Amino acid sequence: MKNTIQTDVIIIGAGPVGLFSIFQCGMMGLRCHVLDALEMVGGQCAALYPEKPIYDIPAHPMISGQGLVDQLKEQAAAFDPAYHLGTQAQTIKKEDDYWHVTMSTGQTLQAKSILIAAGVGAFGPKRPPIDNLVPFEKSGAVQYFIRQRAAFQDKTIVIAGGGDSALDWTISLSEIAKKIILVHRRDNFRAAPDSVAKIDALVAAGIVEKAIPYQLKALSGDEATGSLEQVILSHLDGSEKSIPADILLPFFGLATDLGPLSNWGLNLHKTHISVDPTSMETSAAGIFAIGDVADYPGKLKLILTGFSEAAIASHRMRALAFPDKVFHFEYSTTQGQPGSPSHTK
Amino acid sequence: MKNTIQTDVIIIGAGPVGLFSIFQCGMMGLRCHVLDALEMVGGQCAALYPEKPIYDIPAHPMISGQGLVDQLKEQAAAFDPAYHLGTQAQTIKKEDDYWHVTMSTGQTLQAKSILIAAGVGAFGPKRPPIDNLVPFEKSGAVQYFIRQRAAFQDKTIVIAGGGDSALDWTISLSEIAKKIILVHRRDNFRAAPDSVAKIDALVAAGIVEKAIPYQLKALSGDEATGSLEQVILSHLDGSEKSIPADILLPFFGLATDLGPLSNWGLNLHKTHISVDPTSMETSAAGIFAIGDVADYPGKLKLILTGFSEAAIASHRMRALAFPDKVFHFEYSTTQGQPGSPSHTK
Repeated sequence: MKNTIQTDVIIIGAGPVGLFSIFQCGMMGLRCHVLDALEMVGGQCAALYPEKPIYDIPAHPMISGQGLVDQLKEQAAAFDPAYHLGTQAQTIKKEDDYWHVTMSTGQTLQAKSILIAAGVGAFGPKRPPIDNLVPFEKSGAVQYFIRQRAAFQDKTIVIAGGGDSALDWTISLSEIAKKIILVHRRDNFRAAPDSVAKIDALVAAGIVEKAIPYQLKALSGDEATGSLEQVILSHLDGSEKSIPADILLPFFGLATDLGPLSNWGLNLHKTHISVDPTSMETSAAGIFAIGDVADYPGKLKLILTGFSEAAIASHRMRALAFPDKVFHFEYSTTQGQPGSPSHTK
Repeated sequence: MKNTIQTDVIIIGAGPVGLFSIFQCGMMGLRCHVLDALEMVGGQCAALYPEKPIYDIPAHPMISGQGLVDQLKEQAAAFDPAYHLGTQAQTIKKEDDYWHVTMSTGQTLQAKSILIAAGVGAFGPKRPPIDNLVPFEKSGAVQYFIRQRAAFQDKTIVIAGGGDSALDWTISLSEIAKKIILVHRRDNFRAAPDSVAKIDALVAAGIVEKAIPYQLKALSGDEATGSLEQVILSHLDGSEKSIPADILLPFFGLATDLGPLSNWGLNLHKTHISVDPTSMETSAAGIFAIGDVADYPGKLKLILTGFSEAAIASHRMRALAFPDKVFHFEYSTTQGQPGSPSHTK
């Protein structure tokens, strides 16, 4: 089959955890082909918050989303992965211990192991229920993902939401904005305790203003140019108030879709795939899931947890790829095996 | 008790995993006191291989042992930990939900949680059984830990051992040494497959020479000055050969000792502490273990695994410290609580 490419591991998803999996697989002597629906590697880090500072990557006191992706891609490059970007994994079937994955390109990948590191699947912002949203989205007066932090210099910004994104961006943009008004419908936040404390300090210092309990109601401004003038908020008691603002940043989370993965017959709980935490294997032998898409008792949705899961999965996938080899011999003795990857670059 | 210091978490061990635990605990609103028997933070990374390149820390394509420690210490500094260095944890007892740990300084620490990140415990090199070893150790002709890589420029070096340290240093020093002879008693290595492949390539290129299956037998040289001339090897068949060499680097692993921890009544398997992998809690409620000292089914002894375990433990320790608080409120409401840490600096 000239359209079939053989490899050791097929990785679905080129986000941070998928990228680190290439390195871990490489350390085990496994070569990887990596698919992602996006046209770039890095997943949400690259697509949604390339400039957002991240604080909880071990041994990186602070790193941007894109900086993290760049480091992981460089680390993976040592093992010469093949990337299939802008490409979706569509159907799977198993023949003689090998999984076959058809891609939207028409080609098929064949390997003993599939590693799903798909995060939340395909993603887009949850938009607020405001009638005249589109002209302000088009002008950039309403944004869901921060790509260029510098664009917020000296602006008056309404940030809406109560999760980590809303709080992290309030903290970060407070350094350069003229004023920030944080709108949330209730007086608590689903966010890291340390972030909540920082917000309290910024409010106490007069740098940030809270509008709680309020919800977004409407926008006023010039719909022809998309120039925003006021954000109208509604109180839970029905009253309203208007906030003069240049920019509205709603952080209501992502609308997500696992896509064709949902039909692969895996043990799914809502949008998560159940795995055995000692191997990261799913209910289907040879299919593994790690990172935010994977679930097991005690699971934490942190990037660093995904890194650790990648290591666990790589050990089990090594055993599948080289069942007759002892660990310390596998690499040098499998270089010339039939079934070794014919690599696309 | 004026000699008693209250805190949220007592961390035993200031190696990479202990250091990252400070950050993770801080994110959960928990303050930490950290003990280490060494006079410096960083554990083995700082004491044994500060200049050794490490390749498997996520998002660090290459970082030195000391570089890793420096980054982790900076990341932890945001949460103002108190370090007790050159200090041993001696005895423990529990009173009213609080653990009390006596230290070799005479002071006592009190907290609801103890987090053991002790690695292998106290450590020193396993020395080869050679009679006249001491004068050559004193002169630096025999070394067990590489502190300054530049000292090996243009030297003829015998490296003995078959594990990751022996292979990693053979690969690293091959870039600057005049010649390296790798001595091992059998023709396989307990090391990463990729490292084994690199050694094969260096042997094929004539840069490294293997002496297999041989063992270290004796040293000849000037015992008065400690100047080494020959390393004498014995073959398994009883024959011998002499290798002219400037330096001998035996990498036979570490002799280790958990010390007083062994008597704390925890569920020990040899030198490892059994934990519940969903919480990292040991058989004693409120005592947690992570990193190389901790064991559970499927455990991988990698630094990145320890980082993930630190995150898991921190969530459970938060619940212990603040049993009545919901997650997103705990931090700001516990700032003024009795029982909050009185911090030593």
